[in-house]
Amino acid sequence: MNFYNLPPINYNLPMRTLITDLRTHLDTEVSISGWVDVRRDHGKLVFLDIRDRSGKVQAVALPNHPEALAEAQKLRSEDVVRLSGLAHKRPEKMIKPEEAQGDIELEITSIEVLSKAQELPFDKETDLNIETLFDYRPLTLRRAREQAMFKVQAEIVRAYREFLVGEGFTEFQAPKIVGDDAEGGAEVFRFEYFNGKMASLATSPQLYKQIMVGVYERVFSTGTMFRAERHATSRHLNELAMLDFEMGFIEDHRDVMALLERLMRSLNTHLANTSAKEFAVFGAELPLLPEGAFPVMKLREAQELIKKETGKDKTKEPDLEPEDERWLCEYAHEHLGSDYVFVTHYPTSKRPFYTMEDENDKGFTKSFDLLFRGVEILSGSQRVHDHAMLIEKMKAKGLDPEKFAFYLQAFQYGLPPHGGTGMGLERVTQKMLGLENVKEACLFPRDMNRIDVPLK
Amino acid sequence: MNFYNLPPINYNLPMRTLITDLRTHLDTEVSISGWVDVRRDHGKLVFLDIRDRSGKVQAVALPNHPEALAEAQKLRSEDVVRLSGLAHKRPEKMIKPEEAQGDIELEITSIEVLSKAQELPFDKETDLNIETLFDYRPLTLRRAREQAMFKVQAEIVRAYREFLVGEGFTEFQAPKIVGDDAEGGAEVFRFEYFNGKMASLATSPQLYKQIMVGVYERVFSTGTMFRAERHATSRHLNELAMLDFEMGFIEDHRDVMALLERLMRSLNTHLANTSAKEFAVFGAELPLLPEGAFPVMKLREAQELIKKETGKDKTKEPDLEPEDERWLCEYAHEHLGSDYVFVTHYPTSKRPFYTMEDENDKGFTKSFDLLFRGVEILSGSQRVHDHAMLIEKMKAKGLDPEKFAFYLQAFQYGLPPHGGTGMGLERVTQKMLGLENVKEACLFPRDMNRIDVPLK
Repeated sequence: MNFYNLPPINYNLPMRTLITDLRTHLDTEVSISGWVDVRRDHGKLVFLDIRDRSGKVQAVALPNHPEALAEAQKLRSEDVVRLSGLAHKRPEKMIKPEEAQGDIELEITSIEVLSKAQELPFDKETDLNIETLFDYRPLTLRRAREQAMFKVQAEIVRAYREFLVGEGFTEFQAPKIVGDDAEGGAEVFRFEYFNGKMASLATSPQLYKQIMVGVYERVFSTGTMFRAERHATSRHLNELAMLDFEMGFIEDHRDVMALLERLMRSLNTHLANTSAKEFAVFGAELPLLPEGAFPVMKLREAQELIKKETGKDKTKEPDLEPEDERWLCEYAHEHLGSDYVFVTHYPTSKRPFYTMEDENDKGFTKSFDLLFRGVEILSGSQRVHDHAMLIEKMKAKGLDPEKFAFYLQAFQYGLPPHGGTGMGLERVTQKMLGLENVKEACLFPRDMNRIDVPLK
Repeated sequence: MNFYNLPPINYNLPMRTLITDLRTHLDTEVSISGWVDVRRDHGKLVFLDIRDRSGKVQAVALPNHPEALAEAQKLRSEDVVRLSGLAHKRPEKMIKPEEAQGDIELEITSIEVLSKAQELPFDKETDLNIETLFDYRPLTLRRAREQAMFKVQAEIVRAYREFLVGEGFTEFQAPKIVGDDAEGGAEVFRFEYFNGKMASLATSPQLYKQIMVGVYERVFSTGTMFRAERHATSRHLNELAMLDFEMGFIEDHRDVMALLERLMRSLNTHLANTSAKEFAVFGAELPLLPEGAFPVMKLREAQELIKKETGKDKTKEPDLEPEDERWLCEYAHEHLGSDYVFVTHYPTSKRPFYTMEDENDKGFTKSFDLLFRGVEILSGSQRVHDHAMLIEKMKAKGLDPEKFAFYLQAFQYGLPPHGGTGMGLERVTQKMLGLENVKEACLFPRDMNRIDVPLK
């Protein structure tokens, strides 16, 4: 039973063939759909580079199909078309081996315009300053470069999830609206919720993923987080995508690091399998992985190494400075065969209240940063799981346990030793592909001066 | 090279065995870790139901291990323990066939307490009123019911993504901070962004996913959306997870419906493969699927059917009322062999500006709702892709195209015919499992009166 009485879908239309499938339909009538990427008009023949979600191909309109030729002469970049024609193998000497469909050409028999584009404000593929790049985002995201970038980003998220699901992790939806800014310190966006009550936007799923360890032991979330930082640098975003996981029943932070190392290795494999073409667009290499374990050093050991090798004495600093991170990454790349370096044991003063102190190294935490190509891409640690100790740590940081009553329930009712880590998707994408500015690796970047368009 | 000099991880500890793997380690010394679910103290022997992420098993402490027995007598529900012991096959008459590990028992040789729980405020598995359920969420999420519920939810999201990736869709990160509430109408949370500029929280990724059709043709996103609705009913959430997709190069809305139908069918298969145990917790059935296509009717046809069958004349209404949706679903279940019903052709007045009007049925749109077990679980449509027509539609709805300048770029520079749909994860979960209140299907529900804790 079906009441539906629209005219049927027009099955007389030829089936659409994706551009990458053309080579399996040579010399038969096919129909492709896509955007005019570039038009080259030679008068008696017009070449069109056509782009669809699968790739690009050159099509040619010839005088033997005068209607199609006339139509082709009126086309411009970004027009959306349906082309019928015959795909041919190109003669040997016309093959462009550097292009995926460089050995194929579509001889056009007819053209249907599905959607007309206006004249472009600039050549899409030209070098653009970053303001123009973002002002025209709906257009500039169609560049080969941006298409490749966000394809890689999608694959990073996918690899992250698939690896963790395979390791027995359960995904959960972390809330974004949170109450009072209980943690303090972090710069948060606040807003009026209902009836004059204030709420905040979450800066991390930290407290919730710890609660979730009590439910599923191993959990992850991928979602947006918010930072009200008043910075407009190439390192800051006010809205970002976070990849977080948390795992129970660990011995200490090294279990988290070990899983993370396997995750980053599986990410390499996944990207090699899915994104080689996209990496090539940037001339980017997959991360260099050591044969043995990722290099690991305590903060103080890292500082000693820097002192010994460069003469710069940072041994009194409580943290690494950006130039230290860069130097360590270069060192690890050159001497340790690794683009990844773990630095552990940051002082308790520099880490949040929920970070476990090392009982054998008082004043320092069972925490780590993972450095990658010059920057820290994530932080993690073993967390405090004992209720009384956690309350003590909160108080020592000047926090009010009353405000954490909801979260503290997880600890009142039995939480195993656990730890985890969170990583910013945009920064990983940036460093994977060697981009200068983290904002480039965000589809629709929000900063102090921009929400889609410049804020006036 | 590894500077790392913590004492090594204690590899003398026995490897942890997951509870579901016990049957492959019978009668050898094993170690399990988990929570004490229930303790039954019989004096000379103590039974412990132990729960880990994989399942439950009964463990028993006997007088032949007096230290373990003494420890077992002190344990309470939600204590976190590591148990060593021997897993035995139970004698035939002691087997509990309704439990996954009902044929196995662990004879405890030693107990290590990893984390002590306080006394529980109530029996975890008892019937709770909804306020208590949410007040104690970190505890109540550990109930068998909630564990099953959010496992199913995670599998719904996973099935959604996997199906769409297989269909050539690319995932994208939709922004949550948006500018001026350009669409109007919807109730939105607004907040001060920077320097007195106001921003809003996104109510949908609609405009961005249309932009993304220009980039990848087929896109999806899974993420949080915000609704500042002043309702505190069993149907409302102020923060929800949305599963959205959008696809280019369609003939009309029926291409979207056809893909959606295949998606819901693949969801059934995925849930049958992964979540049968969890459905059983609720006595819930997988959705009933018709052998042929999902039933489809125009709104007016649905109203005629209601009139004919029930005598209630709703034919002048511009939309279905909740009781109509319930009736249609019951009808489809009984007479059409389907838990899903598509209703199409809502009037233009009831649909957003970007909805395509049916050129053969003026005043009505190429839109659809998918009804499922009594409610609408998603809306979708073919969208307007022509720049001039879109501006006209905006104006007809009293919207200012200037405010949409960023979005409109996608249409200026060539966007193919496209359509899509979005579905609330919590509501689908609710209806899959037959829950009364949509809030139950949200891990940490936010409503007018609650952000984790009741708002005072």
